[in-house]
Amino acid sequence: MPAVQPNEQATLLADLRAEARAAPESGIVEVMNYGRLREGLIPLWAGEGDLPTPSFISEAATRSLAAGETFYTWQRGIPELREALARYHGRLYGREFSADEFFITGSGMQAIQIALAMTAGAGDEVLIPTPTWPNAAAAAGVIGAKPVEVPMRFGNAGWTLDLERLERAAGPRTRALFVVSPSNPTGWTATREELAALLALARRHGLWVIADETYGRFWYGEGGRAPSFLDVMEGEDRVVFVNTFSKNWAMTGWRIGWIMANPALGQVVENLIQYSTSGVAQFMQRAAVTAIERGESFVQHQIARARRGRAIVCGALGSVGRCRFALPHGAFYVFFAVEGESDTRRLALRLIDEAGVGLAPGTAFGPTWQGWLRLCFARNAEQLEGAMQRLVASLAARA
Amino acid sequence: MPAVQPNEQATLLADLRAEARAAPESGIVEVMNYGRLREGLIPLWAGEGDLPTPSFISEAATRSLAAGETFYTWQRGIPELREALARYHGRLYGREFSADEFFITGSGMQAIQIALAMTAGAGDEVLIPTPTWPNAAAAAGVIGAKPVEVPMRFGNAGWTLDLERLERAAGPRTRALFVVSPSNPTGWTATREELAALLALARRHGLWVIADETYGRFWYGEGGRAPSFLDVMEGEDRVVFVNTFSKNWAMTGWRIGWIMANPALGQVVENLIQYSTSGVAQFMQRAAVTAIERGESFVQHQIARARRGRAIVCGALGSVGRCRFALPHGAFYVFFAVEGESDTRRLALRLIDEAGVGLAPGTAFGPTWQGWLRLCFARNAEQLEGAMQRLVASLAARA
Repeated sequence: MPAVQPNEQATLLADLRAEARAAPESGIVEVMNYGRLREGLIPLWAGEGDLPTPSFISEAATRSLAAGETFYTWQRGIPELREALARYHGRLYGREFSADEFFITGSGMQAIQIALAMTAGAGDEVLIPTPTWPNAAAAAGVIGAKPVEVPMRFGNAGWTLDLERLERAAGPRTRALFVVSPSNPTGWTATREELAALLALARRHGLWVIADETYGRFWYGEGGRAPSFLDVMEGEDRVVFVNTFSKNWAMTGWRIGWIMANPALGQVVENLIQYSTSGVAQFMQRAAVTAIERGESFVQHQIARARRGRAIVCGALGSVGRCRFALPHGAFYVFFAVEGESDTRRLALRLIDEAGVGLAPGTAFGPTWQGWLRLCFARNAEQLEGAMQRLVASLAARA
Repeated sequence: MPAVQPNEQATLLADLRAEARAAPESGIVEVMNYGRLREGLIPLWAGEGDLPTPSFISEAATRSLAAGETFYTWQRGIPELREALARYHGRLYGREFSADEFFITGSGMQAIQIALAMTAGAGDEVLIPTPTWPNAAAAAGVIGAKPVEVPMRFGNAGWTLDLERLERAAGPRTRALFVVSPSNPTGWTATREELAALLALARRHGLWVIADETYGRFWYGEGGRAPSFLDVMEGEDRVVFVNTFSKNWAMTGWRIGWIMANPALGQVVENLIQYSTSGVAQFMQRAAVTAIERGESFVQHQIARARRGRAIVCGALGSVGRCRFALPHGAFYVFFAVEGESDTRRLALRLIDEAGVGLAPGTAFGPTWQGWLRLCFARNAEQLEGAMQRLVASLAARA
């Protein structure tokens, strides 16, 4: 378009809807831009591992493309994928699921956007225990709802829910409670009792629970998976699950996720898909079917790698002496504070220069967390060991 | 989930946000479900052609997948695609564009959703000349805005804008004017003068124009493309363009589109992408680059086919004697009324049985249009001729 003067640009911006203008910039991007092209930098800032999608998964998409599956498809997702998800959940949660409960979305993020649109609108409030991945709060803001962030407590017992404060924060306009467990960034994972307490709170206040169990497989406790709202809920409970293929199957770049919800809500979910992206490419869905049906050993490999990464990273951070953190029970991040470092945005920039390691500053998770850093350990052991040597040396030197 | 009783299901639904419940079901699906499995049915109901994506485009995605481009990528789209779009627009509109003006979205639908979120929120109004593709109005409703539909007039001159009525409909809460030109479903295409008049109206009332020029290449008048808001606007005008790879390059199933907007709005667009689907798969974007750079002769082939389809279909409908329609100047649909048939939903179901042809009932475009039908002619000539023979016989028999 023809060039626009700076004052015209400001006017254009000012003319946008206030809630759109207020959507925050990602808090990680500044650091990533600073470090992106550094030679030898080990990037532990993003929420993804270092493995590309396994070729047997990608090749399913390739075959579908070659077969000409490039037309419009089912808004709720192809039946084969919804059935595969039902079987997968059956194996994981030990009871029967129906394909009718599953809806394919263009990313876990879109699953959250739709779950929010289902439950909360302008002027409504959404309760969010923090620190947590900031995108749900931001998406609530875009639709005009108010995210009400309730910090968890950090102490000798690690991260704990502040149930009393959550209870007090639930008001007449509160419509939903957004819970990420296992948590990004802390690795905190709600126990069955905590899930029951959250559900009871939601029942008391008539709230929907939006349950983000993206990291449910990355769990370092007993049993093959983290506790889930599925373990404590009844059929009539108001719980909408959001999930993604991104982490389990190393498909972050694909943008494919799912919603699990009561089939009674199916037509509403379908309509909200229709009016946002109108479905997910069939060839992507073929790959997702393959991921579920043939990807279990890859998932196990990733979990084992993350478990080893956790040991490397937490051992090293523990050795520094000035890092505070709780051993993550799930997910693949450690969230830590460094004694004497209150501005971790600056610290993150410095660690790029000094240690050649990229971390996410806690400010990405809200202003409360500016004394913290997030490190992703879904990476090969050798790189993690190298990164931690450099990080420990740099942090210790400043002690 | 455990089975839920019917009354519980109703309660669950009633507990959803009202605007989510109010999102309408697609008006075409009932007819498609009725006819989908009929042997020999010729489907002219959907907004897509009969050609799969050309293999040279799909293969670009395949190569990217094989190269492991499966990680998170730029929220605004990969630079190569934004640059390719800038060059493409340069060729089409005869002046320079910058890559900074382009933002890749997960479908044209998502481009509209984001453009709406940029401009209108709860309680705001969006002016929409109709009949038009209903999804923008529905998406406005989901965000809590009110679509204000202003019917065009149909007469001897074909479809004409009712500018006076649009002017009267613009009130203090009106924030945006959504214009699809060339139009789906009517093929009406705004002249340069009409675009100037719409822009003047938008300027007078301080409205954003959301310009859907998806069908700009499918144009049967003089010159290589339909008139565009780009022909009449100044740099400081509030126009956001939404577009898609779906139609030009037979990529309906891919879900990839773009926004073109003033770069001053770039960070807001990026944030809204971040909080909806967080970007588009890199391997999809590689295919889109190839579509633009090597797909021009395919686009020309599609346009020539649609031109021939238009002649077949309009000639046949004209011969029935009881069909009213305007020769479409653009897009690849004809929208027609049948004398004596006021309920085209029923008529569409009957034509599946009697003629083996699938059409979209006008009710899909709003209750005003229940006397109309939409037929898509982006299809091979032989099939269209067969379909029209059967359709003409069936409609004539009832005259």
